[in-house]
Amino acid sequence: MSRVWNFSAGPAVLPEEVLVQVRHELLDYQGSGMSVMEMSHRGKEFMGILETAEADLRELLSVPTNYKVLFMQGGAIAENAIIPLNLLGNKTVADYVVTGYWSVKSEREARKYCTVNIAARGDKCVPALNTWKISPDSAYLFVCTNETIDGVEYSFAPDLAVLGKPDLPIVADMSSHLLSRPVDISKYGVIFGGAQKNIGPAGLTIVIVRDDLLGLAQTGCPSAFDFKTVADNGSMYNTPPTFAIYVAGLVFKWLKNKGGLSAIEQVNIRKAKMLYDCIDSSSGFYTNNIERISRSRMNVPFTLKNEALQEVFLAESKVAGLVQLKGHKSVGGLRASIYNAMPEAGVQALVDFMQEFAKVRA
Amino acid sequence: MSRVWNFSAGPAVLPEEVLVQVRHELLDYQGSGMSVMEMSHRGKEFMGILETAEADLRELLSVPTNYKVLFMQGGAIAENAIIPLNLLGNKTVADYVVTGYWSVKSEREARKYCTVNIAARGDKCVPALNTWKISPDSAYLFVCTNETIDGVEYSFAPDLAVLGKPDLPIVADMSSHLLSRPVDISKYGVIFGGAQKNIGPAGLTIVIVRDDLLGLAQTGCPSAFDFKTVADNGSMYNTPPTFAIYVAGLVFKWLKNKGGLSAIEQVNIRKAKMLYDCIDSSSGFYTNNIERISRSRMNVPFTLKNEALQEVFLAESKVAGLVQLKGHKSVGGLRASIYNAMPEAGVQALVDFMQEFAKVRA
Repeated sequence: MSRVWNFSAGPAVLPEEVLVQVRHELLDYQGSGMSVMEMSHRGKEFMGILETAEADLRELLSVPTNYKVLFMQGGAIAENAIIPLNLLGNKTVADYVVTGYWSVKSEREARKYCTVNIAARGDKCVPALNTWKISPDSAYLFVCTNETIDGVEYSFAPDLAVLGKPDLPIVADMSSHLLSRPVDISKYGVIFGGAQKNIGPAGLTIVIVRDDLLGLAQTGCPSAFDFKTVADNGSMYNTPPTFAIYVAGLVFKWLKNKGGLSAIEQVNIRKAKMLYDCIDSSSGFYTNNIERISRSRMNVPFTLKNEALQEVFLAESKVAGLVQLKGHKSVGGLRASIYNAMPEAGVQALVDFMQEFAKVRA
Repeated sequence: MSRVWNFSAGPAVLPEEVLVQVRHELLDYQGSGMSVMEMSHRGKEFMGILETAEADLRELLSVPTNYKVLFMQGGAIAENAIIPLNLLGNKTVADYVVTGYWSVKSEREARKYCTVNIAARGDKCVPALNTWKISPDSAYLFVCTNETIDGVEYSFAPDLAVLGKPDLPIVADMSSHLLSRPVDISKYGVIFGGAQKNIGPAGLTIVIVRDDLLGLAQTGCPSAFDFKTVADNGSMYNTPPTFAIYVAGLVFKWLKNKGGLSAIEQVNIRKAKMLYDCIDSSSGFYTNNIERISRSRMNVPFTLKNEALQEVFLAESKVAGLVQLKGHKSVGGLRASIYNAMPEAGVQALVDFMQEFAKVRA
């Protein structure tokens, strides 16, 4: 078996130790005689898996006790509708900060349910907090704290007290950087993310919601996506994606063994620095044009000065065992996603390849 | 490793051959150097998996070309809302036939979106077609063709022409018997099912929808659950549950190798007969009180004449390697789910145990 360095934006690389354990237990989970895939979600084995996963996630993120952790389905794209369906209450306006492809997608979906106010717009940057224009009576303010496609990441947690809105709940799509760094959950009303970046297999959505925001759902909100119903039923109102939760739970254990989020953040800072340094020191052979402070540690889009070399780059890097480096179709170019599970050695291999490629082709 | 006979109602037993293949490919899918869990859903490997899965499912069910096959999320409970959100169009009434726990759950969710007419109600049976009272201007008629908890299964495909409603679309929740027998798809407008019975891991929903029913969704239907949006994007509008689709695809191959649905139906008839014969010949020690013709081949609920023996039965059967035989909490008693992946040897082991248990305790 020969594993590759996988820079996919998601579904994405998982820790090899986790996959080895999954393989080991695949036909017989801890002497149960069953695969986790075959277990009743209400049996004691799976209930144990779910409880441990939630407890470990709470520990990793220091989730305050007044927040519920929900295991849902549909990914961030479903959440784009689920959020207004759950949070508008009797309000008719919501604020959105647009920083790239995914926040645009979020605000467009929200328009089905309410009037959207674009509080601020950043182009290749996160707009400065003091430029945000919040509407007088909005239900929440939405941010996408890491734009997977554009490679734009918040370097700060928005403090709306500065804007005279200390009580406005912030909703954050953290899909592609949740668990990559510590986050002060208490600054947010709702945090959500699809699992298929730093957490586990596609098909699982993590939602962390402050408990005063439960119970506000519109009549038209499907019960399976009503945060209160999901919370009241311990994420078991509908059958949860059991196997994905199991894998996510193993990832949580792996992260704890690595020293938790402060420790993995240091690794992520080093990995991102290696790659951006390579780009920035290439004399323009490679370019990343995101404002420095807003550069994503997770998703690094870049272009080649000579666009004609892009297909060559992709073909040769693949031969070198570096895969999924093509940029998203909406923006083109190249992109390396370097999530938690990408080892430093993988980023080093990419940097080595990029330097050699530039040397030969420059 | 010692595998058990797993009678869980779902998530449920999977074919051991499938699990062995999943294990074999877990860290490296066919030389890709990646787990299927780690692959971009838009990469050629996963696109191949998805296309093959859809083609095999279409072949197994002889899905007509004017039907779309969708891979969705949220299970049947989410579909209970997604169906009215997609199908009501400008109508305000829908008909529901109630035959047990799940169809009750479906019609209750539908009440959020429309006026529900209970066209017929069966108690421990499927009500005869000529007793159904369909409302004059309903958008669709909903049936649950196998009640997982109650053990009631349709022995016929409803022909609404008989009731003067040849054009009314029938929506069928087939979660717990889809792929257990051939089905004439053309008799239905929509068929759906959660995967975690006969198909694959929890977190995947199969929807088969006639194409004239696309494009009717309410404004408030989340885009990720709008059948037309899902169909137009080849089940890729949001990131699909890739690993669950992969496992389902392997199950489809396994079924084809078994000879397809006509062949597996014969096995299922034999298995069900073995178990019902055991119950019926127990002189009342065991009872299943479902009308004979409506007895489910998949889910066999039964009770003990002496209820006090139930915990003993569960404890001793577990020691014998027969697990997940407890009935659903809403109805109590015992239940054996004998899906496609339960071998005849497993049902024989259960029957042997039941006969011995009755002999000793009678």
